[in-house]
Amino acid sequence: MNLLDRIQTFAQHNPFPALPQALYEPCDYILTLGGKRIRPAALLLGYQLFRDDVDRALPAAWAVELFHNFSLMHDDIMDAAPLRRGQPTVHTKWNTTTGILSGDVMLIFAYRHLMRIEPAEVALSLLKTFNRVATEVCEGQQMDIDFETRSDVSIAEYLRMIELKTAVLLGGALEMGALCAQAPTSDAHHLYEFGRLAGIAFQLQDDLLDTYGDPQKFGKQVGGDILQNKKTFLVLKTLETAATGDRQDLEQWLKTGAENPTEKVDAVRTLFDRNGIPAMVLAEKQRFQEEAFHHLEAVQVAETRKAALRQMVMDLFVRDF
Amino acid sequence: MNLLDRIQTFAQHNPFPALPQALYEPCDYILTLGGKRIRPAALLLGYQLFRDDVDRALPAAWAVELFHNFSLMHDDIMDAAPLRRGQPTVHTKWNTTTGILSGDVMLIFAYRHLMRIEPAEVALSLLKTFNRVATEVCEGQQMDIDFETRSDVSIAEYLRMIELKTAVLLGGALEMGALCAQAPTSDAHHLYEFGRLAGIAFQLQDDLLDTYGDPQKFGKQVGGDILQNKKTFLVLKTLETAATGDRQDLEQWLKTGAENPTEKVDAVRTLFDRNGIPAMVLAEKQRFQEEAFHHLEAVQVAETRKAALRQMVMDLFVRDF
Repeated sequence: MNLLDRIQTFAQHNPFPALPQALYEPCDYILTLGGKRIRPAALLLGYQLFRDDVDRALPAAWAVELFHNFSLMHDDIMDAAPLRRGQPTVHTKWNTTTGILSGDVMLIFAYRHLMRIEPAEVALSLLKTFNRVATEVCEGQQMDIDFETRSDVSIAEYLRMIELKTAVLLGGALEMGALCAQAPTSDAHHLYEFGRLAGIAFQLQDDLLDTYGDPQKFGKQVGGDILQNKKTFLVLKTLETAATGDRQDLEQWLKTGAENPTEKVDAVRTLFDRNGIPAMVLAEKQRFQEEAFHHLEAVQVAETRKAALRQMVMDLFVRDF
Repeated sequence: MNLLDRIQTFAQHNPFPALPQALYEPCDYILTLGGKRIRPAALLLGYQLFRDDVDRALPAAWAVELFHNFSLMHDDIMDAAPLRRGQPTVHTKWNTTTGILSGDVMLIFAYRHLMRIEPAEVALSLLKTFNRVATEVCEGQQMDIDFETRSDVSIAEYLRMIELKTAVLLGGALEMGALCAQAPTSDAHHLYEFGRLAGIAFQLQDDLLDTYGDPQKFGKQVGGDILQNKKTFLVLKTLETAATGDRQDLEQWLKTGAENPTEKVDAVRTLFDRNGIPAMVLAEKQRFQEEAFHHLEAVQVAETRKAALRQMVMDLFVRDF
C-alpha cells in the first residue's frame, strides 16, 4: 500500500466521535476537502529513511495533518475567506462559533494521536518538536496579520514570517519522522532544515505563481495577491530594488481597490517585469531549494533510501514558469 | 508561601515571550483580570494529599489555568460577551482574530508547561487526563450551544452538559494533582469524582445565585439568566414539574425579549417560587455535594492531610441564600 493510502486508511479507522455532531462534522468536512497530505507524507518518508515499519508512525503523521487543518480552519475565519479548495469554508458553511470550536477540538485530537506513539520517550520528544512548531505557526500567523497594517516590512521579516507560518511545519513533520524512527539527533536536525528551507522555497514559488502561474494549472485566481494588496516577496523586492518612480507607482497601486482588476494586475505585473523581479524571486527560491537539498545529502543513510523523499519534494517544485 | 502565592510566582517566572506583542499581550491581559485560580489550587491541594514538595506540580497547575483561560477567551467570542470580570473581553479590547489566535497559543502553552513534569511517564499520564478533559470541555461547550436552539432539553442532558463544560476540569485538575504525586490509581479516581461532582454542585449553585443571589455579593446582574432566556436547571425543573398553566406561562416568558427586565425577572421568579423550584435545586445541589465528599473520604490518606482541600472546596459553597 502506498503512503497516501496508508494515511487514508488510518484516518478511516480513527474517526472523530459521532457526537456532538455539530462539533465533529466540520472536522470531517475540512479533512475531506482534499489537500495533498504533504505534511503527513513527509513525516512517513522521513521515518522510512531509517526504518521500514512505517505504520508505527501513522498516528504522528495524522496528528500533523490535523494540526494543519486546525490552523486552516482558524486562519479562514481570520482572513474572512469564503472558499477553500472551491468549497465553502467551515465558518461560511456553518458559522464562526463552529469554526472556532471545531478547530479547537481538532488541535486537541492532534495531541491525542501524537501521544499514541511508543515508547513513551519517543512520544515526549515528538511532543516537544510539535509544541515548538505549533507555537511558531501561531507567531507566523500573527506576523502576517501585523504586516497588513505596516508599510515598512523588510524582506528579512517577510522571510521570517513565511518560515514560521508555513515552512517550520514541513520541517517539523520531517524531524518528527526521524524522531519516531529514533534516528540520530544530527539526522533529525538535517531533516528539519531540509523541510524548513524547502518550505521557504515553496512559499516563494507560490508568490511567483500567484502572479505568473498558468491559470489552467494554478487553481486560484491569478493575480489574487495583487488585488488584495498583499506584501508578497515580489512587492517587497520591488520596493527595495526599483527606481524611485516605479517604487512610487507600486505604492500607489497598493492603496487602490480592485475596481478594475485586469488593469491593476497588468500594471503591477508590468512594474515587476520592468525591474526584473521574477528572475530575482526565482533565484532566491533556487537558493533556498539548493540549501535544502544539501541538508538531505547530509543525512547519514544510503542514497537509495532517500529517493522517495527527494522525489516527493522535487515534485512540489514547478520547473516551468 | 501559600499556594496562591506560589502560583503567582511561578507565572511571573514563566512569562509568555515578548514578541509578537499582539499575540502574547492578550494572554497576559486575560490572566491579570483576576479569577480565583481555583483549578490550579485544586491541583496543588490534590498533590499535597500525598507529597509535600508541591513546587514540582506547579507547571501542571499553571497548564490547567492556561487551559481555563484559553477556553474563556474563545467562549467569550462565541457568546459575544463584552465584559469579563468587569473588564473588556479580549475580542472586544482587540478583535475576534486576536481572540482566536491568542487563545490558540495559550492552549499550546498549556501543553508546553504540562510536559515539563518529570519523570516522563508522569508527564504522559497527565497528558492523557488533560486530553480527555480538554475534549470534554469542547463537547460541553457544543452541547450548551446546541441547547440554545432546542426546546426539548431534558434535565439529564443539562446535567451532562454542565458536567462536561465546567465540572470535569475541576475533577481533572484534582486527578492530575494525584498523578503528579504518583498516587494510587484508585485515589486519583476518587479525587476526579470529588471534583466532578463538586463541580456539578457549584454550577447548580450558580444557577440558583443568578436568580436568587444577593446583588451586593453576586458580582453579576441578578436575573441575567432569565433575561437571556437561558435554559438553566431552574427553568428545566419548572418545565418538568410545574402544572400546565405555569409551564405555559414560563414557555411564553422564554419567548419574550428583555424590554421590561424587572417585570420579567419578577414574573419568572414568582413562577419558580410558586412551584418550589429553589428548594428542589438546593436539594439536588446538596445531593451532588454530599456524593462528592464521599469520594474525598474514600481517598486513602490521613484525614489531617485532607483539611486544606476540604476547606477550599467548602469555601466555594455558599451557605445562605
